[in-house]
Amino acid sequence: MANHRHYILIETIKRLLRRGSYARLKKIISKVHAADLSTIFPSLSVSNQRKLFSLIEDREQQGIVLSELDEDIVLAIIENLSLDEIAAVIEKMPSDDAAAFIKMLPEEQGDSVLSRLRKIGEDVEDLLKYPDDTAGGIMIPDFIALPEEMTAGEVISTLQSKEYKDIEMPFYIYVVDERERLVGVCSLRQLVLVPSSTPLKQFMAPDVISVTTDMDQEEVAKIVARYNFLAVPVVDHESRMVGLVTVDDVIDIFREEATEDILKMAGVGQEFVETKSVYRSTRIRIPWLFASCVGGIVAFFIIGHFEDSLKKVSYLAAFIPVIMGMGGNVGIQSSTIVVRGLATGRILIHDLWRVVSKELAIGLILGTFYGLLVGLLAQYQYSVSGLTIAVCIGILTSMTVAALVGSLLPMLFARVNIDPAVATGPFVTTAIDILSVYFYFQLASLLLGL
Amino acid sequence: MANHRHYILIETIKRLLRRGSYARLKKIISKVHAADLSTIFPSLSVSNQRKLFSLIEDREQQGIVLSELDEDIVLAIIENLSLDEIAAVIEKMPSDDAAAFIKMLPEEQGDSVLSRLRKIGEDVEDLLKYPDDTAGGIMIPDFIALPEEMTAGEVISTLQSKEYKDIEMPFYIYVVDERERLVGVCSLRQLVLVPSSTPLKQFMAPDVISVTTDMDQEEVAKIVARYNFLAVPVVDHESRMVGLVTVDDVIDIFREEATEDILKMAGVGQEFVETKSVYRSTRIRIPWLFASCVGGIVAFFIIGHFEDSLKKVSYLAAFIPVIMGMGGNVGIQSSTIVVRGLATGRILIHDLWRVVSKELAIGLILGTFYGLLVGLLAQYQYSVSGLTIAVCIGILTSMTVAALVGSLLPMLFARVNIDPAVATGPFVTTAIDILSVYFYFQLASLLLGL
Repeated sequence: MANHRHYILIETIKRLLRRGSYARLKKIISKVHAADLSTIFPSLSVSNQRKLFSLIEDREQQGIVLSELDEDIVLAIIENLSLDEIAAVIEKMPSDDAAAFIKMLPEEQGDSVLSRLRKIGEDVEDLLKYPDDTAGGIMIPDFIALPEEMTAGEVISTLQSKEYKDIEMPFYIYVVDERERLVGVCSLRQLVLVPSSTPLKQFMAPDVISVTTDMDQEEVAKIVARYNFLAVPVVDHESRMVGLVTVDDVIDIFREEATEDILKMAGVGQEFVETKSVYRSTRIRIPWLFASCVGGIVAFFIIGHFEDSLKKVSYLAAFIPVIMGMGGNVGIQSSTIVVRGLATGRILIHDLWRVVSKELAIGLILGTFYGLLVGLLAQYQYSVSGLTIAVCIGILTSMTVAALVGSLLPMLFARVNIDPAVATGPFVTTAIDILSVYFYFQLASLLLGL
Repeated sequence: MANHRHYILIETIKRLLRRGSYARLKKIISKVHAADLSTIFPSLSVSNQRKLFSLIEDREQQGIVLSELDEDIVLAIIENLSLDEIAAVIEKMPSDDAAAFIKMLPEEQGDSVLSRLRKIGEDVEDLLKYPDDTAGGIMIPDFIALPEEMTAGEVISTLQSKEYKDIEMPFYIYVVDERERLVGVCSLRQLVLVPSSTPLKQFMAPDVISVTTDMDQEEVAKIVARYNFLAVPVVDHESRMVGLVTVDDVIDIFREEATEDILKMAGVGQEFVETKSVYRSTRIRIPWLFASCVGGIVAFFIIGHFEDSLKKVSYLAAFIPVIMGMGGNVGIQSSTIVVRGLATGRILIHDLWRVVSKELAIGLILGTFYGLLVGLLAQYQYSVSGLTIAVCIGILTSMTVAALVGSLLPMLFARVNIDPAVATGPFVTTAIDILSVYFYFQLASLLLGL
């Protein structure tokens, strides 16, 4: 839906909510795609979110809306719902969404919902045993796996049977041996193309790329993206097929991981906080700023330490911003390139030396360039060669160290399996700031004989 | 392919390249998936990239490799190829990749390649008329559109005909009226499920969501993601179907746009530069750093302006880092949240006031908290109430202004269709730094009677 139409829809719904025209709202809601409906919620107040949700009459539509919304909105909406209502919505969700939804609930509520679901014969518990961000946690258990002896014609009539009617995306037919182990795959398309008496094993592709239940979701997403798959089968440790990760989930994973990386680099936690309350947003941001505050205070003490120098040569202070700024910005550039390069596969963990030495070279060139530039300014303004040299070398060192630390840290973090994105947050910038200021003052005091 | 296996593959290929064991290399290459092969290139030197590429014997595999690689690697590789060879590879590419590839070539070379392709009867020119980043620029022209009167059985035999054998992802059958206008869609699955004499118009879904050729690729990607489509049809301004954007391209778009946003925010251009040479990387990064350098120099003059104050109260300088750092970091937090919120649809352009006022409130709270904290430190160290107040209010103001500017600018940019990500680059941080330093010195001079 284009932006403009989207805007009109939101304004219409807001207006009808204000007026209490619930009959008209219900009519509109029944015609709007659940995915569009879900985009409206972030713009509404909590009470209107609850009201709008209660006006959705179709349980399936309710389920889609809930699975598209951010956690805090979901929790606000379902506060008003009875356990039976929650269970009724979950029943209509695809099982991967249902599992994600149940994991979102407070423990006690989750348990009660699970026992209700058990009563009505729904079984989502199998999915709950895998961690959230693994292939097992995001797979759906609805797939088509048939024995290799079955013929194309038999497969087609099997597909028409009731058992497979609810399968979400039946684009691949997986082929398994007598012990349920995955041995091949064929597309729905091939099925229509071969004579109907051909057995699966004669036209299936035998080399199936699959993932294991414990593989990290980001790895799974990369595999689906690399081979342009619509879905990838998930197998357990005995190679038995247990589920399917579909391409729509892969898109969500990439968007989610990119958001996480971006937020971590900026020091705003890792979950999207805009939709959260002012209080919660503030609480998430306070600790990250604390790092930068501590850094500032350390810089304060360093400068205080050189107070005598400053008393004699007060213009020393004037170069603090440029020295801090240049180092900080090169550091952010280097670490951003490395973090994003690692995330997109353009940089490999094993390339540590190649990547770091290149960033170091860039830092040296940039440091020389800007060191000379600002040094010229210092010389022009004050004509004190000691100061000029201190400024020049201060910037050169600050930028070189920043490029080195900014590229080395995320590479090392990635090697020991720590998320490299945290390495680009305020911590690194702060460390570089402190080092730069200290080195500059030390050098200046020495050269100026202070 | 898991990381470890991937590493072994790279090391093996490097070793064989060193040894010149080309026969063995060719054998390995023929067994490796082209998508895996392409991930090896960034780790190789240019001469090895060319050598490895020349050892790929299958034109189709060559085509996939080229379409997966970054521009600079592609250009380095094809420098060694004749126009005929290039044309032969392009011929085997899916037409959207072919178009993207031709657009990448230097103009003269592109024209020569086009005329060769014309000679061998390939027609990619239709695709070249649409701008790169629109639905028209990324669509493939291979889709199945059939008249609404055709029966399911007729459709199946049409699919088996030679004409449709090369269609990339035939998961939806599009239905058109006598004037080629898109009127419906049905899945391959439905086709197998209905009796074979049913005409398309009886079981097709009549409300097809489509995009127009000039829609921005990011919008297209959002639509495919929102409705969990495998493909979305592209229509011209007369509603005639002209192409298809597939989900694999959508994944690439999201990853590319996220990379662009991240790089812009860090001030390193918008294309991934790690794989570029040191010289080119440096050239891309110099201008962005220039903004921060100019900012530093402005701060230098501001502080110089207050040199008399500094001579009298030298410890004023000690607070420069903490005031700059706190403002800068809150600004980055606010703008990152807004930029990413806009990109993911969690924030809507129309919500300007709601978003900005919330960030402002957060800035005020954080500013008060950290203002008091650092103020306490100032009081404890120097017991000069004028200084304490200047530091306290300086930080409060700096953080509040930063939150305001950091959220307002990207919102305004988005409104006038400028990419909000540029608003978070070094420019904003630099502007906030300057304002903060100026305000602090002005206030301190006033309060301390300097």
